[in-house]
Amino acid sequence: MRSILRDKDLARLGDSFVNLIYSTAKTKASGKPVGEKVPDRVLSQALEIAKLPVQMRLTHGERGDAVEAVLAYAWMHNLLPLEEAVTILYTTISGAEYESRSLEREISAKAFSRLIRVAVDRIEGADCG
Amino acid sequence: MRSILRDKDLARLGDSFVNLIYSTAKTKASGKPVGEKVPDRVLSQALEIAKLPVQMRLTHGERGDAVEAVLAYAWMHNLLPLEEAVTILYTTISGAEYESRSLEREISAKAFSRLIRVAVDRIEGADCG
Repeated sequence: MRSILRDKDLARLGDSFVNLIYSTAKTKASGKPVGEKVPDRVLSQALEIAKLPVQMRLTHGERGDAVEAVLAYAWMHNLLPLEEAVTILYTTISGAEYESRSLEREISAKAFSRLIRVAVDRIEGADCG
Repeated sequence: MRSILRDKDLARLGDSFVNLIYSTAKTKASGKPVGEKVPDRVLSQALEIAKLPVQMRLTHGERGDAVEAVLAYAWMHNLLPLEEAVTILYTTISGAEYESRSLEREISAKAFSRLIRVAVDRIEGADCG
């Protein structure tokens, strides 16, 4: 798991994956096409909520990369279908009232933390299986 | 079709889609994780090869947006599964010898032009069906 979290190539692949699933979930929630980049700050907060074992001194960018890497790894290894990832995000963000940008970021971070937990559980399960 | 090609929201969604399918196809071809952004110049050239009806005076960026929009539209409407899009790109780029960056761009443009034609044919087919 530690080597996945630090893999910069996986993180670059994961960057597109994360933006696509988030944009698709928001598109489903709003009913019109949305294309968004997920801020590192949101992914960093998601990592914190999910309580993954990462070094304390990482920047938001490095924590964002770690999230992108772990989600890309799970997706690439058929442990997390894209459609399911969209559904997990959608379930949390749909129906939420975005009264402010900070509230939106908080809800998005919560949604991603659920996704991280699913991905990590399945990666660890696959390693043991 | 013209309204799809000009949809900036679809293009933003398509930006992540295009980078993800390209990165995944290159990952499959090389056997190690690759995360890449597809240059507008490549998508612009792909549009030219695919002979889509767009205005002559568009910039590379605007042409890139048009490609991203049409691919996102096809994917969102279940006309082009992500896995198939990856396979179409992979079929063209795998086995190619990248002797230079310009040759790599040319092969990538050819791969995307095939994908554009598939997407456009299916969108037009769905409209008529």
